[in-house]
Amino acid sequence: MRTFVVVSHTAPLEGDFSLSDLPGGAGRIDILCRCATEAFLLSHGIRKDVRLIFAIRDQLIITLEGAWLRHLNPDERSTAALLRKAISRGAGLGPGEVARSTSGITVRAGGLNDVIAELGEAGRQPYLLEEEGLLLRRAELTPGAAFVLSDHRDFEPEERALLDTCPRLSVGPRSLHGHQCITLVHSELDLREAGWTDG
Amino acid sequence: MRTFVVVSHTAPLEGDFSLSDLPGGAGRIDILCRCATEAFLLSHGIRKDVRLIFAIRDQLIITLEGAWLRHLNPDERSTAALLRKAISRGAGLGPGEVARSTSGITVRAGGLNDVIAELGEAGRQPYLLEEEGLLLRRAELTPGAAFVLSDHRDFEPEERALLDTCPRLSVGPRSLHGHQCITLVHSELDLREAGWTDG
Repeated sequence: MRTFVVVSHTAPLEGDFSLSDLPGGAGRIDILCRCATEAFLLSHGIRKDVRLIFAIRDQLIITLEGAWLRHLNPDERSTAALLRKAISRGAGLGPGEVARSTSGITVRAGGLNDVIAELGEAGRQPYLLEEEGLLLRRAELTPGAAFVLSDHRDFEPEERALLDTCPRLSVGPRSLHGHQCITLVHSELDLREAGWTDG
Repeated sequence: MRTFVVVSHTAPLEGDFSLSDLPGGAGRIDILCRCATEAFLLSHGIRKDVRLIFAIRDQLIITLEGAWLRHLNPDERSTAALLRKAISRGAGLGPGEVARSTSGITVRAGGLNDVIAELGEAGRQPYLLEEEGLLLRRAELTPGAAFVLSDHRDFEPEERALLDTCPRLSVGPRSLHGHQCITLVHSELDLREAGWTDG
C-alpha cells in the first residue's frame, strides 16, 4: 500500500462551487484533482494499492482508496465533480462520523494531526516531500511509507510542527508541482518493485 | 532545448468545442492539455528551454515554445482555451502558412511527416516513448533529443513507418499516460544536468 497525504489550505468546505472555475471560485481544487489523477491512474486502469488522503483546511479529511475507487477519469473536471460530491457529504459531520461518498471515497471531520496520528498507529512512516530533502532515488524507504506534501502554499507552522520528525525527500533539483512529485514517487517505487533499479 | 512531439488522433480541427466537455465533444483534448502542463510547468514558472509540438490528425501542427509562452496555467480548462484559440487560428491555413495564436503558440497545416523531417534537418534525434523500449534511466541520449509519443490511441501504421528507425525508450515497468512520461523524461534530464545521477 502506497499512501499519499496532500494538505490543502484553500479547497472549499462546501460543495456549492462551479466546475468551470476550479482555480478560482473552487479554491484551487484543481490541484487536488491532479494529485488524484497522478496517485491512481495508469494508462489502462487504476492503481489498486494506493490510498490518497486530502486534509483540507484542518477541518475535512477525504480519503480515496484505490481498491474500491470508481468513476475516476483523467480529466480534471470530472475528478472535481467527485470531490465536490465528497465535500457535500462531509459538510456538517460531527467528530468521529464518517460518510461514504461515491465508491472508494469517504469523508470525515478532522485535520492533519489526525492523519499523522493514524499513520503512526498503523506503523506507516510519513516522509515529507520537499526540495531540501534527501534525493528520493538514493533514499532507503520503509515498507508502507506515506508521502506528505502541501498544495501551492507552504505548510503552516503548526503543520510543520506535526511533521517535524519526518524524514525529508526531494525528487530532484527543480521545484515541481505536488502532482508531479506523486508521479515521480510512483515511478521510483515501480522501478524498485520490478527490480529495474541498479544496485 | 528539449522537444516533445505528441500525436493526437482525435483532437478537433475547428475551435467551436465546449470547454466543459474536453474528453467528449472536444475529442480528448484534455490529453493535450495535460501534456502541455507537464512539458512546461514548474512549481513557480515555465520551462523556457522546451518546445512542444502537437501533430493533430495529420492536418494541423501546433507548436508551443517555452521561451515565449504566456498565459499557461496549471488547470486543464484554461489550457484548453489556449489550444482552442490556436485551433481556430489554424482553420483554413494553406500549405506553408503559419499563424500566430497567443504568445509562444503558432499553428500551421501539416502532419507528423513534416515534424519528423524538420527534426532531422535540425539534427535532433527523435526517440519514441513506448513500453518496449530501453529503460530511460539507462539510455544514453544525444543532446537536443526529441521525444515522440501518442495520445490514448496507438500510432497508425503510416505513423509507425515514419518512426520506424527511432530508438525506443521506456520510462518503467507500468504503462503510463503520455503526460506522465513527459514528467519522467524531464525529471531524468533535470537530474542528469544537475549531476545528481550516479555514474
